[in-house]
Amino acid sequence: MRAAIIDTPGCIRVGSVPDPSPGPDELLIRVGACGICGTDLHILAGDSPVARYPIIPGHEFAGEVVALGSNVALDNDLNLTVGSRVAIEPNLTCGQCEMCRTGHENLCLHYRAIGVTLSGAMAEYVTVPIAKAYALPDNLTLREAALIEPVSCAVRGMHSLNPRSGDTFLIAGAGTMGLLLLQLALKGGASRVAVVDVNTRRLARAENLGASRTYTSIQQALADEPSGFNCVIDATGVAPVIEQAFTAVKRSGKLLIFGVAADEARISLSPFRIYNEEITIVGSMAVLASFQPALDLICGGVIDTQSMLTAALPLEDFTRALDLVKRGEGVKTQILPGL
Amino acid sequence: MRAAIIDTPGCIRVGSVPDPSPGPDELLIRVGACGICGTDLHILAGDSPVARYPIIPGHEFAGEVVALGSNVALDNDLNLTVGSRVAIEPNLTCGQCEMCRTGHENLCLHYRAIGVTLSGAMAEYVTVPIAKAYALPDNLTLREAALIEPVSCAVRGMHSLNPRSGDTFLIAGAGTMGLLLLQLALKGGASRVAVVDVNTRRLARAENLGASRTYTSIQQALADEPSGFNCVIDATGVAPVIEQAFTAVKRSGKLLIFGVAADEARISLSPFRIYNEEITIVGSMAVLASFQPALDLICGGVIDTQSMLTAALPLEDFTRALDLVKRGEGVKTQILPGL
Amino acid sequence: MRAAIIDTPGCIRVGSVPDPSPGPDELLIRVGACGICGTDLHILAGDSPVARYPIIPGHEFAGEVVALGSNVALDNDLNLTVGSRVAIEPNLTCGQCEMCRTGHENLCLHYRAIGVTLSGAMAEYVTVPIAKAYALPDNLTLREAALIEPVSCAVRGMHSLNPRSGDTFLIAGAGTMGLLLLQLALKGGASRVAVVDVNTRRLARAENLGASRTYTSIQQALADEPSGFNCVIDATGVAPVIEQAFTAVKRSGKLLIFGVAADEARISLSPFRIYNEEITIVGSMAVLASFQPALDLICGGVIDTQSMLTAALPLEDFTRALDLVKRGEGVKTQILPGL
Amino acid sequence: MRAAIIDTPGCIRVGSVPDPSPGPDELLIRVGACGICGTDLHILAGDSPVARYPIIPGHEFAGEVVALGSNVALDNDLNLTVGSRVAIEPNLTCGQCEMCRTGHENLCLHYRAIGVTLSGAMAEYVTVPIAKAYALPDNLTLREAALIEPVSCAVRGMHSLNPRSGDTFLIAGAGTMGLLLLQLALKGGASRVAVVDVNTRRLARAENLGASRTYTSIQQALADEPSGFNCVIDATGVAPVIEQAFTAVKRSGKLLIFGVAADEARISLSPFRIYNEEITIVGSMAVLASFQPALDLICGGVIDTQSMLTAALPLEDFTRALDLVKRGEGVKTQILPGL
Ligand SMILES: NC(=O)c1ccc[n+]([C@@H]2O[C@H](COP(=O)([O-])OP(=O)(O)OC[C@H]3O[C@@H](n4cnc5c(N)ncnc54)[C@H](OP(=O)(O)O)[C@@H]3O)[C@@H](O)[C@H]2O)c1
Ligand SMILES: NC(=O)c1ccc[n+]([C@@H]2O[C@H](COP(=O)([O-])OP(=O)(O)OC[C@H]3O[C@@H](n4cnc5c(N)ncnc54)[C@H](OP(=O)(O)O)[C@@H]3O)[C@@H](O)[C@H]2O)c1
Ligand SMILES: NC(=O)c1ccc[n+]([C@@H]2O[C@H](COP(=O)([O-])OP(=O)(O)OC[C@H]3O[C@@H](n4cnc5c(N)ncnc54)[C@H](OP(=O)(O)O)[C@@H]3O)[C@@H](O)[C@H]2O)c1
Ligand SMILES: NC(=O)c1ccc[n+]([C@@H]2O[C@H](COP(=O)([O-])OP(=O)(O)OC[C@H]3O[C@@H](n4cnc5c(N)ncnc54)[C@H](OP(=O)(O)O)[C@@H]3O)[C@@H](O)[C@H]2O)c1
Ligand SMILES: [Zn+2]
Ligand SMILES: [Zn+2]
Ligand SMILES: [Zn+2]
Ligand SMILES: [Zn+2]
Repeated sequence: MRAAIIDTPGCIRVGSVPDPSPGPDELLIRVGACGICGTDLHILAGDSPVARYPIIPGHEFAGEVVALGSNVALDNDLNLTVGSRVAIEPNLTCGQCEMCRTGHENLCLHYRAIGVTLSGAMAEYVTVPIAKAYALPDNLTLREAALIEPVSCAVRGMHSLNPRSGDTFLIAGAGTMGLLLLQLALKGGASRVAVVDVNTRRLARAENLGASRTYTSIQQALADEPSGFNCVIDATGVAPVIEQAFTAVKRSGKLLIFGVAADEARISLSPFRIYNEEITIVGSMAVLASFQPALDLICGGVIDTQSMLTAALPLEDFTRALDLVKRGEGVKTQILPGL
Repeated sequence: MRAAIIDTPGCIRVGSVPDPSPGPDELLIRVGACGICGTDLHILAGDSPVARYPIIPGHEFAGEVVALGSNVALDNDLNLTVGSRVAIEPNLTCGQCEMCRTGHENLCLHYRAIGVTLSGAMAEYVTVPIAKAYALPDNLTLREAALIEPVSCAVRGMHSLNPRSGDTFLIAGAGTMGLLLLQLALKGGASRVAVVDVNTRRLARAENLGASRTYTSIQQALADEPSGFNCVIDATGVAPVIEQAFTAVKRSGKLLIFGVAADEARISLSPFRIYNEEITIVGSMAVLASFQPALDLICGGVIDTQSMLTAALPLEDFTRALDLVKRGEGVKTQILPGL
Repeated sequence: MRAAIIDTPGCIRVGSVPDPSPGPDELLIRVGACGICGTDLHILAGDSPVARYPIIPGHEFAGEVVALGSNVALDNDLNLTVGSRVAIEPNLTCGQCEMCRTGHENLCLHYRAIGVTLSGAMAEYVTVPIAKAYALPDNLTLREAALIEPVSCAVRGMHSLNPRSGDTFLIAGAGTMGLLLLQLALKGGASRVAVVDVNTRRLARAENLGASRTYTSIQQALADEPSGFNCVIDATGVAPVIEQAFTAVKRSGKLLIFGVAADEARISLSPFRIYNEEITIVGSMAVLASFQPALDLICGGVIDTQSMLTAALPLEDFTRALDLVKRGEGVKTQILPGL
Repeated sequence: MRAAIIDTPGCIRVGSVPDPSPGPDELLIRVGACGICGTDLHILAGDSPVARYPIIPGHEFAGEVVALGSNVALDNDLNLTVGSRVAIEPNLTCGQCEMCRTGHENLCLHYRAIGVTLSGAMAEYVTVPIAKAYALPDNLTLREAALIEPVSCAVRGMHSLNPRSGDTFLIAGAGTMGLLLLQLALKGGASRVAVVDVNTRRLARAENLGASRTYTSIQQALADEPSGFNCVIDATGVAPVIEQAFTAVKRSGKLLIFGVAADEARISLSPFRIYNEEITIVGSMAVLASFQPALDLICGGVIDTQSMLTAALPLEDFTRALDLVKRGEGVKTQILPGL
């Protein structure tokens, strides 16, 4: 089959590899759509601490079942059979480490993920454990279904943040994740949501999606709302932005660190203020018990998928697609291996 | 001034009473709009355990400051002065009982409330403690502002329920409160919200406000969604409905008892099921730390006030207004004493 | 090997069965100690809706590894090897159902458990998935380690209840579970814990373990503390007791239904009171992310294991051991198959 | 009456001032015992941002009612009368600011407190609002009751931290507050609690109170427990300690910033780690809905008051008492104005 392969950091090609075949508890999937995200760029750049090379990337995907592993019961719980359409939660867990055993499977000490440590979906076919497959309702396209994974990260962020009805929000970063978080916040209890980004085209998208106000800096937002916001979310991963985001938290409010900063980045915070204003800071990492809710949110129309899905390219154009992402063009760029 | 007066249960009249004058820490308010709710009917019927007679009812109101009490600083925190427009949280708390001292002021052991135990706002003027007044932004009408109180009850309900992003909802009852809860749920994390009512005109309103599906019985809803809903809210107060609502809770899900059943009503539940499916049942009573959030939610456009505000009548038509409410016509009926 | 076998409801014998051998991802365990609990009586009586016959019961156990399955890595995460001492979480989860995928594995729709649907530990040997084994520290005896399972149920109860520092408690039922919950409450934030049981010998045990007060009825407890308790726990499973426990909840307080009532039992509650006093009712079922915490609590000395471990009998005396349990003699009765 | 007076920063004396008389809603209290804490040292040093001079300090106190204000009903809710013994929550709230109105009264924007902005209890008499008085049970001494205030701060810390049954703890700082937090943690769900302090005499006290292990640095604690602790509490207020405390948080764990760092102090944290390990950081400030729970915890024997109460000096020795505190001698030093 054809696949995008990163042989070593920096070296990407689209080439031919042997067709995969499903293990006993696996499904073989014909990939319908696979999104590109920052993680893919990190794997290519060689600054992912977890990636293994060579690797076929691609972890945001949906497709059609073309074969069932030998252990997969014909009357399986999900009614999956050849022809079924599915989305896949790409993170695998060991089930044995302390994190897995205490309900924090997303923090598993033995990280493995399709598209990061195992062959991913930037290919015609991919194998996946049936335990990670979700059957899709008929009215969801495979392109929409390939959005479930990023949405499920944003849902995990909302679960960690645990906002209350009426909270005011500030979201820093209006990339794909910021725009998803914006929608979840607007339909997640917010009375109003301000959005900050340096890229004004993205702010325009935020306004179209319902942002109450948009700004090119957090200082500007604070000028309008000097006592700050109940809930502040960083969706940039830029350390100085996170530091400013901290200043924008209202007394008794919360800061969600959703963006992925560099490992060596540091933020400088006032511990007096955390104490004196009872500020809470929380982190959110990938997907935890949030894939099904994300699927439901998309089906329920909470996410405006049409606004999120911009370019869709064939597998052979994978390098060009990466360039779109690097340049920040559009929102979610996807590869459709069947094109 | 003119006021509606309930002299004793069953006896209501619109008559003249002396103008009130504000105590030292009070404001005198010219009432702009005052909503009618079930509590007013209970006070009239004589089945409110807390009402004192004779009483001027009216606890859902907004108006204009016409005089300041002698202790009210001219540079008060809210910048209130003669002419300011305000909404008022009607529940007063003693500050000394165990509930007040442990953060449950809505459960104060010495219940007092404007319009229930103290003269209310079905009158030209009413006095209110400044501590209970909220300054209104210019773009909010007094009719909209008189909705803050019922919205703040619904917000308290959402805070008690504490739903998570992606939860599925079932709401029983599409009266004023059910329709408010519907809107808060749709913008409070829900992936979809089913609504049940026996009154199909109200179901039509629920659909217009975004309900995913509507039904005339909970059984019908369960036929479509046999494993139940993550969050079920009773907004009828009808005991058999609450019992059915319990059956509609999904494993690990929650039931919010928001409706006010009769004191002597009983529901029969399976304790095995509560254990075996880890069901949670919670109650929500009036307003707790939710008036400002409600104001913010209305200002932020989360509540469609136009759909909620139906009849508006002059004070002299108070009895006619009560009839509208009793007949379930429209949604929120208000008295505008200035008409 | 020798094992206790329930061939059909009511028919129990100790007999010889073939030695089990571990599957690829399993361990073979020589059982050191196995506790008896109400579930075993239910399996014997034939009123367990989930048991399969014939069955070797026994799900509260610890022992020594005597063989490793073919897939178990020699350098496994837990450093388990032949001779390692382990306790086992007996509940197996499917990993694919909606409950498993949303973090409620204890509510798995495909219930399977060692000692209930699969051969258990009332035998010389038992096989267990390595994913369910926990390595024991040297200072824990196998008898103490066989307590981890019931403690982990009680810990799940505390996690569901989520009490706050300073809460007052009432616990109904001073059997094994009530006495464990008493200890967890006393070291779980309680300012005081009252205990109710009809059996005064058990109340004496509760007092020795630190109960602030003990009573033979909930009414008596309420006579001393008329406004009720912040946290009330039913650990009897008796429907009329659960109803009374509800009356003992303070305004804004919580009721944990931990006891297992009969499937057809019903409790009659006032929905007005749940609303008006903002009462919360929660259920707690088995073990969720609580086995490791239970192990840690026992190692930390939070549980007085000496007070909990009463009779220890050889496997051949299994019937006699069941009688002790039925008669409510002592606290935890264990079988030591190696005796 | 005699009182300790701080006329200006640095200038303290014990002198005579006019006897206070209670306002309408106040009580006049004869002070029985008043503790000294770091706040008093800050007021004396002039580095309290909120103190007003001249000031009679003293906010941790209990005493006897000697007169009732004119509004105080003889049949008041607390049954307070001349001769009643009371403890007092010293923080006053405005009731009108956004924090007061959303349930965060401890973060009131108009800070006022007995002993900080209003005359305190380092005097023979002090006046207090009845709303802040708590009646004492007979078996509590006034010295013990003067501990309720610091305990209620620690209880607020535990409420903010919201630990779960079985959590492992590390507490940095074994001063009065660290030792109180230690006791609340040991009886607040902890399976084990490690304590770190540079002062080994204090570590000895921590061990006597039940600390599982003690260390003179956080690094040592991490050497024993390399994966860190579920709950880490800073009770030093020292910025470098808080930074290290952050490193001691286990994946998915929490850090409570309880110690009061200097306003200008900064800590440097890895935002990547907060994200990647889903770390939570929370602050806790003074008393919120925690005075009654603290009273209950002391009455319930959860706090070993005998170990906490060291020196007790007469009012005339206030300067000597301050020296004891500055030198870190003993634990809680109190002034008994009646000595
Ligand atoms: N927690 C999780 O589970 C999770 C999951 C997925 C992604 N993430 C992280 O979430 C973050 C956002 O992801 P994404 O896919 O949305 O990335 P993205 O498309 O690159 O969006 C980031 C946005 O932040 C803007 N930005 C950069 N510097 C800024 C500044 N100084 N002030 C304001 N805005 C600034 C960027 O503008 P320019 O484009 O002009 O630079 C861009 O619009 C990333 O760090 C990603 O790694 C986290
Ligand atoms: N918790 C709080 O703080 C709070 C605050 C305000 C109100 N409440 C309570 O909330 C409830 C709703 O208030 P509301 O103002 O919205 O009252 P409402 O206008 O009377 O609405 C109740 C709705 O439930 C419907 N209903 C009655 N029986 C039903 C049944 N068997 N099945 C389905 N629907 C049924 C009613 O239909 P019909 O009109 O045809 O009977 C009506 O549409 C009341 O109990 C009220 O007391 C609680
Ligand atoms: N939620 C979970 O995960 C979980 C886990 C394990 C067990 N459980 C359940 O927890 C409950 C307790 O288990 P256990 O092993 O401790 O059982 P147990 O030893 O039978 O203890 C129950 C205690 O309640 C007492 N009791 C019975 N009727 C009473 C009444 N009317 N008033 C006061 N006390 C009364 C019993 O006294 P007598 O002995 O005199 O009747 C007995 O001392 C059971 O229902 C069990 O099924 C739940
Ligand atoms: N959040 C609140 O509501 C609240 C309420 C009250 C107090 N506080 C704060 O809580 C903190 C503790 O109060 P406290 O009364 O217990 O103070 P304390 O008696 O001074 O105790 C602090 C302890 O930390 C030790 N320490 C100092 N530097 C250290 C280091 N590098 N490593 C380890 N230990 C170190 C001190 O040792 P040495 O004595 O040898 O320096 C002392 O034993 C203070 O910051 C106080 O302001 C907060
Ligand atoms: Zn793992
Ligand atoms: Zn009160
Ligand atoms: Zn399952
Ligand atoms: Zn305030």
